[in-house]
Amino acid sequence: MFKKVLVANRGEIAVRIIRALREMGITSVAIYSKADENALHTELADEAICIGPAKGLDSYANPIAVLSAAMVMGCDAIHPGYGFLSERSDFVQMCEETGIKFIGPSSEIIHLMGNKQNARTTMQAAGVPITPGSKGLVHSLDEAHIIAQQIGFPLIIKAADGGGGKGMRRVEEMSQFDHLFEQAQNETQAIYGNKDLYIERIIYPARHIEVQILADEHGNVIHLGERDCSLQRNNQKVIEFAPAQSLSEETRAKICQTAVQAAKAIGYTNAGTIEFLLDENENFYFMEMNTRLQVEHPVTEMITGIDIVKQQILIASNQPLEYTQEMIHFNGFAIECRLNAEDPKFQFRPSSGYINRLILPSGGIGLRVESAVYPQYLLPPFYDSMIAKIIVHQPTREAAFKLMDRALYEVVVEGLETNIELLDGLISSESVFHDRIHTKWLEESFMPEWQMTLHENEDTDKLEEA
Amino acid sequence: MFKKVLVANRGEIAVRIIRALREMGITSVAIYSKADENALHTELADEAICIGPAKGLDSYANPIAVLSAAMVMGCDAIHPGYGFLSERSDFVQMCEETGIKFIGPSSEIIHLMGNKQNARTTMQAAGVPITPGSKGLVHSLDEAHIIAQQIGFPLIIKAADGGGGKGMRRVEEMSQFDHLFEQAQNETQAIYGNKDLYIERIIYPARHIEVQILADEHGNVIHLGERDCSLQRNNQKVIEFAPAQSLSEETRAKICQTAVQAAKAIGYTNAGTIEFLLDENENFYFMEMNTRLQVEHPVTEMITGIDIVKQQILIASNQPLEYTQEMIHFNGFAIECRLNAEDPKFQFRPSSGYINRLILPSGGIGLRVESAVYPQYLLPPFYDSMIAKIIVHQPTREAAFKLMDRALYEVVVEGLETNIELLDGLISSESVFHDRIHTKWLEESFMPEWQMTLHENEDTDKLEEA
Repeated sequence: MFKKVLVANRGEIAVRIIRALREMGITSVAIYSKADENALHTELADEAICIGPAKGLDSYANPIAVLSAAMVMGCDAIHPGYGFLSERSDFVQMCEETGIKFIGPSSEIIHLMGNKQNARTTMQAAGVPITPGSKGLVHSLDEAHIIAQQIGFPLIIKAADGGGGKGMRRVEEMSQFDHLFEQAQNETQAIYGNKDLYIERIIYPARHIEVQILADEHGNVIHLGERDCSLQRNNQKVIEFAPAQSLSEETRAKICQTAVQAAKAIGYTNAGTIEFLLDENENFYFMEMNTRLQVEHPVTEMITGIDIVKQQILIASNQPLEYTQEMIHFNGFAIECRLNAEDPKFQFRPSSGYINRLILPSGGIGLRVESAVYPQYLLPPFYDSMIAKIIVHQPTREAAFKLMDRALYEVVVEGLETNIELLDGLISSESVFHDRIHTKWLEESFMPEWQMTLHENEDTDKLEEA
Repeated sequence: MFKKVLVANRGEIAVRIIRALREMGITSVAIYSKADENALHTELADEAICIGPAKGLDSYANPIAVLSAAMVMGCDAIHPGYGFLSERSDFVQMCEETGIKFIGPSSEIIHLMGNKQNARTTMQAAGVPITPGSKGLVHSLDEAHIIAQQIGFPLIIKAADGGGGKGMRRVEEMSQFDHLFEQAQNETQAIYGNKDLYIERIIYPARHIEVQILADEHGNVIHLGERDCSLQRNNQKVIEFAPAQSLSEETRAKICQTAVQAAKAIGYTNAGTIEFLLDENENFYFMEMNTRLQVEHPVTEMITGIDIVKQQILIASNQPLEYTQEMIHFNGFAIECRLNAEDPKFQFRPSSGYINRLILPSGGIGLRVESAVYPQYLLPPFYDSMIAKIIVHQPTREAAFKLMDRALYEVVVEGLETNIELLDGLISSESVFHDRIHTKWLEESFMPEWQMTLHENEDTDKLEEA
């Protein structure tokens, strides 16, 4: 087992990993930027080392700085968390070369899954259904035109190296196609230095269903069930559920089995997630594989009782999986809400500054909060805006919603704007409770009405003030 | 079901009950003293009413003030929590007369169990083993002398109405007896206005094992297993465990069955706890019955998954128990540490004042914190000194200790003295982990050595400062 592990991240996930290391009796080393000298992860770790200025690219996302820190501090492994360097195959390769164990899959797998088109081809070869689309890259407008006609509309044009919506265009009908294809080409050229695009049919309405995988370095692969992450705004998950309520038992078994089969086929190791789109007839299509821990991993932990972070560490230290598939039992229902520092009145722009007063929910059975903020904490503007994950676990879906409702009621964050009202609104929504949602539902159906209420409340507030 | 419930308490237990009410969709009404205007329970409840000055006897323990508040606020039930009015049969009788439901057993049962000698006699009649001792009250020194010779030493002289060590004397041998008996008589006279004493053999070394009971108003009684509360200081529980690790399966079944049988025999209703002393040969003897929620109820909740506070409310609203004994399953191992504001360097005297900085542990699987304090909170000096209960639940005893160790590591309370070092020391103790403890072990075996370490640390601190 490792003696000392560098936690190559910040915020709640760094704290989460440091806690797991402490429970396992492994020394933890935090890295921190100059903006994070007073951060909780810096304080909680056994040791800590400053690795650069505030900006992520100069500190947490700087491979040389992070690897040097690991070497200087005498670490035998690095846990990357999510974001930053967690899916940077070049960084992982550097780790492999220096003999410091990267707690995750091999650089080769990360590289393979990091390119969306390669991932699609690989998954298709492993027997995973993929959405209708171009077979490989599309280079010319003429070629694209023919493919578009074959697969039908709506479709999406995507950059092979893209992420977070960059180089991406949604096309509703043929008349828009040429114009948008050229736009996407230009954007991709500007950002990635190539024109590598591909085209895919859009599944609409669709659910986002993902399967959690654990794979050891001895060829054993199990799944920990699926999550429903269809509640999204701006392609960002807002609330996640485990299990996916509406899935038939047959599809549930099939999608989980497909994920295990795919992970085996590509020789995957460590924790990973395969994301699928599920259409109204419960056909599912490969979307992407995340070769790292997910933000929403706690909902799976709650229904299985398995600590995924500890499993990652055990697997990376070459231990065979402690569990066979038969040993995994699913209990109850879990929900995660992401509490973000962002201002719903201004298109959810990030909010930063001093947290004057802070109360996060606590107490009772089945409530869990993952956070790295504390009262009087200065939330720096340089990183992502998530300030807490509120997770509940109850025997039934109804009880889970009630507990989440109670938990959200208790949240007090003064000094920053947050999305608490959005979370409140979603958890109180009949459509959400009865699971009548899809990936665009929040933006298309919920938000317009909710924003009207928000403005009404504002008017009432002003009236009361007057 | 009730529409509106008065929570007749303060601190963590008031918050605990308010949260349960919110999850059940019942309106909660907090009562608060003038010292508690900014208390968390006052803020979290749906409604709140001030019922008097700071002193407990003038507010939370004042039956007229509390009952008036319930009537003024239109409550149909009162949850008493623990302490204050929770075992005051006169108050419960007032509730019964006004038709406001007291969430607990009847005034009759509370009265019966409130008198230790009556409780002993009743339990003996119900087939529960009791410690050798006087059959009823002892009035004269001569009579006491004879009884003492019969039951043997060490023995204890107790006031019939006593609690918390008042009117209590431990006698090691006959030569001390007369003197200590007279002392106890005088103290009892001064405090309770009578000389009602009884005598009992002291079981030493003994474990404190207690059984949690749930009894509905239709004659159904189940147990939720036992707890080991042997880690005590000054007759106050410090750390509690569920289940009791060292109990043989045979004794476990027997002690739980005895508790159910006793509760049935006396027609007990609602949640209750029967406390036993267990000697080295696993003989157990009735100690007392607590006719209310216990501070340590969460450890039982964690291993059964049953919310005892909600069950109390359901039972009081005349619903039959949701569970049969066969439906109760025990999972894993739970520990509760009581974090108190008290100064170990001065005989654990209570500490009060502003909490400048506060971090309570959080995150991970199986950690729960019940507390009513927050940063910048002024802890008033009028009430008990417990500021948080830290509870862990894990599949194994070993994992539970590791998680508790991690949780205690995170605690930061600045501005007050706390017993955190004592808790740390106990959780790190081999004797505690291997369950080689008894009710006097903390004071007799652990404390002397631990206090030396404490002084050594102090010396080191001074050295470092110099």
